[in-house]
Amino acid sequence: MSDPSPALSHLDAAGAARMVDVGHKPVQTRVATAEGELVCQPATIALLRDRALPKGDVIAAARLAGILAAKRTDELIPLCHGLPLDSVAVDFAVLDDRIRITATTRTAARTGVEMEALVAVSIAGLTLYDMMKAVDKTMVLGAVRVTAKEKI
Amino acid sequence: MSDPSPALSHLDAAGAARMVDVGHKPVQTRVATAEGELVCQPATIALLRDRALPKGDVIAAARLAGILAAKRTDELIPLCHGLPLDSVAVDFAVLDDRIRITATTRTAARTGVEMEALVAVSIAGLTLYDMMKAVDKTMVLGAVRVTAKEKI
Amino acid sequence: MSDPSPALSHLDAAGAARMVDVGHKPVQTRVATAEGELVCQPATIALLRDRALPKGDVIAAARLAGILAAKRTDELIPLCHGLPLDSVAVDFAVLDDRIRITATTRTAARTGVEMEALVAVSIAGLTLYDMMKAVDKTMVLGAVRVTAKEKI
Amino acid sequence: MSDPSPALSHLDAAGAARMVDVGHKPVQTRVATAEGELVCQPATIALLRDRALPKGDVIAAARLAGILAAKRTDELIPLCHGLPLDSVAVDFAVLDDRIRITATTRTAARTGVEMEALVAVSIAGLTLYDMMKAVDKTMVLGAVRVTAKEKI
Amino acid sequence: MSDPSPALSHLDAAGAARMVDVGHKPVQTRVATAEGELVCQPATIALLRDRALPKGDVIAAARLAGILAAKRTDELIPLCHGLPLDSVAVDFAVLDDRIRITATTRTAARTGVEMEALVAVSIAGLTLYDMMKAVDKTMVLGAVRVTAKEKI
Amino acid sequence: MSDPSPALSHLDAAGAARMVDVGHKPVQTRVATAEGELVCQPATIALLRDRALPKGDVIAAARLAGILAAKRTDELIPLCHGLPLDSVAVDFAVLDDRIRITATTRTAARTGVEMEALVAVSIAGLTLYDMMKAVDKTMVLGAVRVTAKEKI
Repeated sequence: MSDPSPALSHLDAAGAARMVDVGHKPVQTRVATAEGELVCQPATIALLRDRALPKGDVIAAARLAGILAAKRTDELIPLCHGLPLDSVAVDFAVLDDRIRITATTRTAARTGVEMEALVAVSIAGLTLYDMMKAVDKTMVLGAVRVTAKEKI
Repeated sequence: MSDPSPALSHLDAAGAARMVDVGHKPVQTRVATAEGELVCQPATIALLRDRALPKGDVIAAARLAGILAAKRTDELIPLCHGLPLDSVAVDFAVLDDRIRITATTRTAARTGVEMEALVAVSIAGLTLYDMMKAVDKTMVLGAVRVTAKEKI
Repeated sequence: MSDPSPALSHLDAAGAARMVDVGHKPVQTRVATAEGELVCQPATIALLRDRALPKGDVIAAARLAGILAAKRTDELIPLCHGLPLDSVAVDFAVLDDRIRITATTRTAARTGVEMEALVAVSIAGLTLYDMMKAVDKTMVLGAVRVTAKEKI
Repeated sequence: MSDPSPALSHLDAAGAARMVDVGHKPVQTRVATAEGELVCQPATIALLRDRALPKGDVIAAARLAGILAAKRTDELIPLCHGLPLDSVAVDFAVLDDRIRITATTRTAARTGVEMEALVAVSIAGLTLYDMMKAVDKTMVLGAVRVTAKEKI
Repeated sequence: MSDPSPALSHLDAAGAARMVDVGHKPVQTRVATAEGELVCQPATIALLRDRALPKGDVIAAARLAGILAAKRTDELIPLCHGLPLDSVAVDFAVLDDRIRITATTRTAARTGVEMEALVAVSIAGLTLYDMMKAVDKTMVLGAVRVTAKEKI
Repeated sequence: MSDPSPALSHLDAAGAARMVDVGHKPVQTRVATAEGELVCQPATIALLRDRALPKGDVIAAARLAGILAAKRTDELIPLCHGLPLDSVAVDFAVLDDRIRITATTRTAARTGVEMEALVAVSIAGLTLYDMMKAVDKTMVLGAVRVTAKEKI
């Protein structure tokens, strides 16, 4: 590698962190989807199904926390740009030993929205964790990753 | 289960989300540690070691993002209480195919600080993700969990 | 009135706004309740009962928005002190032509929490407004007031 | 009503809250005006006129709180989009037993700004409440509503 | 200097930034005062005195911006602790070629409040700058420093 | 001056603060640079060079704090518009008795970004102050000013 890495785009030639200039990139519709999962005890899921899911507030709280966090991604991730999100959707699949979380974000902007989707999944997952932590000390948030990203 | 679950403490008798009243709990020193890891391509780690680690800004950015996010946990996780954090430390171990993140939070308050530690780990991990995403599309944040929690 | 008014406590002798010094007041448990109501068309309430209430997300969203806003009262109301809230509860009564909103806040602090309760009611009400505004252009948020306040 | 309601636009087919996709709507100049009023004791208004209005800080504080809150509407109202506000104006009419608050917001965006105007009125009103609550325990914030909305 | 510097207290033994643990320090009343000044053209001051000072909104806006920023110091300065401020006062002296800004902050906490006072002065000064920048391109904010600090 | 001043553009005809309407101005690329300096004891600089600069966290913390604050300028400066920043860069020159801070901000928007650059410099400087205050009680932040501003 004889040439200064262009790849770590958040570092300038001297290695200092910077917010990458996106001014020359076109405004385009950009969509990203991220997923993750909160692995729980099966008994926790059973309790959730029995007590919490009928009323809906647990899932609704996690969904809203994810949506709100996505909108504040640039305050949380230091080098992210502030983007006007056209939509954010956060969905949940309650499986026997885990809850799968999927977030899709969309913008018309000069840079992509995968960080927004990842933030939504992570904060939605931690909100579930918070509401179930009194009954399950073994939960693990994992498999948080981007599953789709496109420019339209 | 014949009796209304006291365990899902964030739900009231009608199943509505609430911020649990901690007013009757004593102020105690409370410490929590959480861990997580960002799994990367070995080539990404090699690049990071070669280009970014000597200067230090990548790790420093992730550390500060984690500390700042820990202090805003109650804005991100809807039912969390605002707590005056006495300290937050976020550390990193750069392994051959992953970066391990550890956060320890401490307070003197009426409720614990594990959510603050989990938020610090998650946002620190996503900040690393953001700075390396141009070179590695395969990264996964996982194994985010509480590893220690105590009252002193 | 020959004597400088002590009553407008947020103004100093020169009439300048200030954040009142509460340092000499004792830390006490303080509770406040506020109410308000969003007046709607009966058809809006019928639609809400038919479509939205079974799932629960509309009420849950308003409740969480109120709780989150209560925690940020000192960022919104310039001369309010930051208080560690021990609990926040936001409840709703869906009547034939209005939704009544009640918020109760509790702290152990040097000053009261009625502003936190009022902020919770107002933002919960506006969140309902936002979700129903596509079907009802006539809604009015009103009767926002403190209904109880005590030191224990 | 045999057909799934398109009207409660913040709910998807399953009844889950979502941030409505506005990506297909054109960027247009959009203006909204909201009003509200804080009803007080006449003696409170007399005191305000005598002591606070000459200096101006009470009204200025309420105005600025309303402007600042309007800019943060998307953090407060969970399903609102972040909009770049071109202008916000908040005005006050001090009447004999109430203060009338009017806010006008303007943007060039894909969705309207009435929530921003309503948030400005509500937070301006509660800021007045906060500054006068030591002298008047009977105040009520009400008649908060949209009075004009247009696309240009 | 043969011994690891204890003085740069925000760095741990390895040189990493950390939020200093203040858990062992006593809760005490702590007060700090900071000053600064915005140097302007005399004609700018004359205009301000003629047009803006009678109404009061310019000074009121700067004062409130300083108070609000002081309350958010821990969000702005990464390694600062969140402190419950008992009072914040921001005052201004309009001199012939500058505006002097003084802020005093007070808390009962485990660590001092000089950063809160410095943030209040700086943001109040920049708010003045913002409101006068259309008429004066030469303004300089300077002499921002702590002038008093005590534990009681 | 016989004519009402158009120059104090943040005041309306009645002298009330307002957020200036920029809706009629064209979207253009706008760049601004601000500078400032934190004057320290030479011994403080020596210590910083010896202990803190090799690891990099002190400068990295100040840089990130400046970048993050720039993105929140409209929350801090009441009458500023929210702008989508295309880039923010914050740089430091460590001289014998001071640290010079330079920030450059860039946007495509209807109004300029000098306030964002000034906020970045000020908060970066105060972050340095915070990390060095245990060893130097004499530091002064000054010479904070705009050094370049252009429309492209």
